[in-house]
Amino acid sequence: MAKLLTGFVRASGYANKVRKVLFAITKGSVKPEEVVRAAGELNRYIFKKFQELGVEKEDVIRIQAPFEVKEGLIHWNYDGVKIEVYKKDEEEKLARAMEEVEEREKALEIAIEELSRLSNKLKELSEEITKVVERIKREHTGLELNFEKE
Amino acid sequence: MAKLLTGFVRASGYANKVRKVLFAITKGSVKPEEVVRAAGELNRYIFKKFQELGVEKEDVIRIQAPFEVKEGLIHWNYDGVKIEVYKKDEEEKLARAMEEVEEREKALEIAIEELSRLSNKLKELSEEITKVVERIKREHTGLELNFEKE
Amino acid sequence: MAKLLTGFVRASGYANKVRKVLFAITKGSVKPEEVVRAAGELNRYIFKKFQELGVEKEDVIRIQAPFEVKEGLIHWNYDGVKIEVYKKDEEEKLARAMEEVEEREKALEIAIEELSRLSNKLKELSEEITKVVERIKREHTGLELNFEKE
Amino acid sequence: MAKLLTGFVRASGYANKVRKVLFAITKGSVKPEEVVRAAGELNRYIFKKFQELGVEKEDVIRIQAPFEVKEGLIHWNYDGVKIEVYKKDEEEKLARAMEEVEEREKALEIAIEELSRLSNKLKELSEEITKVVERIKREHTGLELNFEKE
Repeated sequence: MAKLLTGFVRASGYANKVRKVLFAITKGSVKPEEVVRAAGELNRYIFKKFQELGVEKEDVIRIQAPFEVKEGLIHWNYDGVKIEVYKKDEEEKLARAMEEVEEREKALEIAIEELSRLSNKLKELSEEITKVVERIKREHTGLELNFEKE
Repeated sequence: MAKLLTGFVRASGYANKVRKVLFAITKGSVKPEEVVRAAGELNRYIFKKFQELGVEKEDVIRIQAPFEVKEGLIHWNYDGVKIEVYKKDEEEKLARAMEEVEEREKALEIAIEELSRLSNKLKELSEEITKVVERIKREHTGLELNFEKE
Repeated sequence: MAKLLTGFVRASGYANKVRKVLFAITKGSVKPEEVVRAAGELNRYIFKKFQELGVEKEDVIRIQAPFEVKEGLIHWNYDGVKIEVYKKDEEEKLARAMEEVEEREKALEIAIEELSRLSNKLKELSEEITKVVERIKREHTGLELNFEKE
Repeated sequence: MAKLLTGFVRASGYANKVRKVLFAITKGSVKPEEVVRAAGELNRYIFKKFQELGVEKEDVIRIQAPFEVKEGLIHWNYDGVKIEVYKKDEEEKLARAMEEVEEREKALEIAIEELSRLSNKLKELSEEITKVVERIKREHTGLELNFEKE
C-alpha cells in the first residue's frame, strides 16, 4: 500500500499538486493516462470534502491518500484519506508563503510551456531534416537507407 | 508505361545509378522497399547481359528499361530493355569524364553519410529533450501533457 | 529605488533565493555577470547578519533589500535591508512547508540540469550539421554560402 | 605550386566547377572569402578566353590552372593556364553526358538548398532553446550558469 502525500499546499492548487505528486511517485510503473484519470478521480472526491468543510482557496491544506496499483490501475483507499485544513486567518504566514509558492510555480509554468512549444518544433524539424537527408541518400548516393539497416 | 533512363554512366556504377534514377522517378508513388527490390531485380538482369557482352567496369553504358506500376509493384518489361555500351578504348574522353563523375559522387557520399549520422543523432536528441520536458511538465507543472492534447 | 523581496524561504536556501529573485526583477536591464556579483555581495552581508542573529538553516527568513541600478551596476542600500527570522520551533508548519518547497526545488534542479546538458549538446550538434551542410554546398553545389548572404 | 584541374565540364558550368574544385583542394588552408575571390578572378579570365575561342555553353571544356598560396592568398599563374575545348558537334556523347551531369547537379542543389534552410532553422531553434533553459536556470534554480562555467 503506497501513500500520496501532498505536503502543504494552497487549497486553490490542490488538484495540480495531487497530479504532480502522483506522477512523481508512480514514475514508470503506471501509464500517464491512468495517472491523469486517478488524479482526477481523487480530486473530485477531495473537492466535495472541501465544500463540506467550507475550505476557501486561500486556506492551506495537506492531504494523504493511500492507494494500491493493481495491473497498472490505481485504486484509492478512500477510508484512509486524511485532509488537514489550515485557515488563512489563523495561519497567516503559512498562507502567505504558500501563495508565494503558487506565484513562482505559475512563472515556471510559463517558461516550461515555452520550452515545450520549442521542443515540439525541434522534433518536427529533426524529422524534416531526416527526411530530406534520406531523400538525398536515395536519389543522389548509393548509401544504405535507414530502413535497410534495421 | 514509364521508362527508366540511366543516362551515361560508368559500368562500375550502373547498379547505384539504376536505383537512384528509379527512386527519383517513382517518388512518392512506390514504397522504398519495392524500389530497392525492383532495382535489385533489374540489376541482376543487367549484370548477366554485361557478362554476355564482355562489358568492363571502365566502359560507359546507357540503359533504358520500360516498366509499369501495378498496385504498388514495379513490373519490368524486359523485352524493351536496351543496353548501349561504349568501350573505354574507343570513347576515351567519355570514359575519363564518367570516371571523374564517379569520383565526385564518392566524395559526396562521404559527406552525406556524415550528415545522415548527424541527423539520426539529432532525432534521438530531440526525442530525449521532449521526454525530459514532458517529465518536468508532469512533475512540476499543471500544464496539459502532449497525450492530453491529441 | 527598486526593492528585492525574497518572500518566505528556508535560511539554508537564502543565497539561491536572492540570486533567483534578482535575476527575475532585473531581467534584461542588467548583465548576468553583474547580477551574480551583486547577489554575492548582498549574500555575504546577510550571512554575517545571520551569524549575529543566530539563525539556523531550518529557520524561515524573509528579506527585503532596496537597491538602485546606475550605469548597469547594482548598488545595495544596506541601511534599508530588513531581515525577518521565524524560528523553526515557533513556526513549525511554516518551517516544514518551506522544507518541502526546498525538496521540490532540488528535484526540479536535477531535471533542469539534465535539460541544460541536452540543450548544450543540441547546440553543438546543430553547429556540426550546419558545418557539414556548408561544406557540401561549397564542394558540391554552386549555392550561395552563408557568409556571402550577410 | 599547386594546380586546379576542373576535369571535363560543360562550358555553362565552368565557373561553379572552378569554385567547387578550389574549395575542395584548399580545404582548411585558405579562408572561404579568399577562395570565392580567387575563383571569381580566374573565372573572369577564363570567360574572356572563352569569348576569344568562341566557346558555346553546350561545349565541354577542361581547364588546368596552377597557383600558389602565400600568406593565405591565392595567386594564379596565368602563364600556366590551359583550356581544352571539345565542340558539342564533334564530341556528341561527351556533350550529352556532361549535360546530364549538370541536370543531376541541379537536382542535388535543390535538395541541399532545402537542407541548408532547415539547418539554419535548427541553429536558431537550438539557440532559442538554450536561452529559455538558461532563463529557467537563472530564475528557478541555483544551478551554475553557462557563463560561470567558462
